[in-house]
Formats: sequence, C-alpha cells, structure tokens
Amino acid sequence: MKFAKVLTIAAVAALTTTAVSAGGMFKKDKDAVNYRQSAFTMIRFEFGNIGDMLKGKVPYNQEQIVLRAEALEQLSKLPWKAFDDKSTAMGGKVESSALPKIWQDKGEFEKIAKTFQKNAKALAEAARSGDKGAIKKAVGGVGKTCKGCHDNFKD
Amino acid sequence: MKFAKVLTIAAVAALTTTAVSAGGMFKKDKDAVNYRQSAFTMIRFEFGNIGDMLKGKVPYNQEQIVLRAEALEQLSKLPWKAFDDKSTAMGGKVESSALPKIWQDKGEFEKIAKTFQKNAKALAEAARSGDKGAIKKAVGGVGKTCKGCHDNFKD
Repeated sequence: MKFAKVLTIAAVAALTTTAVSAGGMFKKDKDAVNYRQSAFTMIRFEFGNIGDMLKGKVPYNQEQIVLRAEALEQLSKLPWKAFDDKSTAMGGKVESSALPKIWQDKGEFEKIAKTFQKNAKALAEAARSGDKGAIKKAVGGVGKTCKGCHDNFKD
Repeated sequence: MKFAKVLTIAAVAALTTTAVSAGGMFKKDKDAVNYRQSAFTMIRFEFGNIGDMLKGKVPYNQEQIVLRAEALEQLSKLPWKAFDDKSTAMGGKVESSALPKIWQDKGEFEKIAKTFQKNAKALAEAARSGDKGAIKKAVGGVGKTCKGCHDNFKD
C-alpha cells in the first residue's frame, strides 16, 4: 500500500488544484476532510449500534433501530460532495485516509457511493418493517459496501 | 466562566454515572462526544455554505441551497442523543466544550434543541420555496438558536 502510494503521488499532484470546488462549501482542503470524516464517524456509530442490537450486545429496540437506520440513510448521502476536491493525504498537506485511487478512478468510487446509498435506504426500509431477517440481510448489504470501498479506496 | 465551571464540578460529578446510556449507542463517554462533535461540525458547514450563498461570498445556487438546508434539517435531529449521558469536559475525562449546565438544566437545553430542529425544518421549507427573503428570515431563526444555545451551554 505504501509503495503504491508513493508511485501515485505524481499522478495525483498533476490533478490537484488549489481551489476547492463543491460550490464553495469548503474553503480549505482541510474543511472537506473534516466534513467527510465527521460524516463517516456518525455513520460508523449508527451502523455499529444497529449491529450491536442484532447481535444482542445491547438491547434490541424497534424504535431505536428505525431511528438509527433512518439517520444512516440520510448520512449516506452526505460525504461525497467533500470528495469533489482533490484532498488526500498525498503531499502531506492534509492528513486523511483517502487513497489517490478515489480521484484516479472517480467513476468506480461514485458507483460504490451510489450502491452504499441504495443499501442504506434498503436498510431503513427493512428497519421500518420490523422483520429481523430482512434487517440482518440489509445490514449485510451495507457492511459489504463499506468493506468493498474501504478495501479499495481507504488507506 | 472558568470560576462557574469549578463551582459546578461537584454537582455534575454527583450526577455522573460510568455507564453510558443512549441505548448502548456509545460505549465510552468519548464516543458520545465524538458523535455529537461530528454532527455539529457538519451542521456548521451546511449552515456556513447557506450563509455564504446569501451573502454572495460563493455563487447562489438554488439546488445547492435546498440540498444544504435539507441536510441541515436531518442533522439537526441527531446530536441530542449523545447528550443523554453525562459527558462533559468536567473532571478532565473527556475534552468537550459542553458546559455542566446542560445536565443541570436539561429541560431548558432540550427546549432549545427542539426549537433548533423546528427552525432548521423551516429553513428547509424556505429553501424549497426559492424565496430569498423567506430563506434569509429562516436563516436568522436558525442562527439565533445556535447563538442562544452556545451562549448558555457551550464553553
């Protein structure tokens, strides 16, 4: 991973602009990293709580699982705008776990991001149904998308 | 502020339990602080971008203002669960800007939290209407609630 990272610095540097895009939402690269890391932090807690309820690590609560799944669905839509700029850990400018591959293979990254949103929506629907089997299946779908993206695009 | 803080440590310590509540969503006090700070970080960027568009600091975009206001509305619902436990900066256990007054005056804090959510919802509605005057008025409402809460409950 480290070696691949070094090899791709030049390629990413060529794409990098100092101006941050995303409709002026982020004034500095650091802002975009901060925003998307916040979104993923929240997503991790929502998803973790749902998993813990299903595993019986914390008491199962139908109202709580719907709340968490609906929050997850909403949050699943948000981090992507903060990848519009070229912020990465590359060049040591901003600390981040985002791999340059995100911007080199933006089409694939955006495809995974869309699948994640679709799976999060399906989980919210399953949570509202109250059917534990359906919820478990939907959790599997979300988890798979998380892992797939982390394996490919996260350091 | 610092003097008041010292005076209230004992009172808060009396209320503090080691077990974190919120339906087992947060295993450590630090998790709750991390979650709510992430929520407020995102809220700050959403609201900041809306303000910048209205002030002409960044180009006004109707689609973008609706997206940001709707994200703000969703996010406005989320941080409060992470205040269910007694995590504060008190006792130096977890670094946080939350003042002990939050837990001493939970009724007032929850009232402000509800007003914030109501105002964020009104902003999303105004954004969808596309009426700049209405959006500005709604932004004023949200901003006032932010400030009111920060003045009273944030270090």
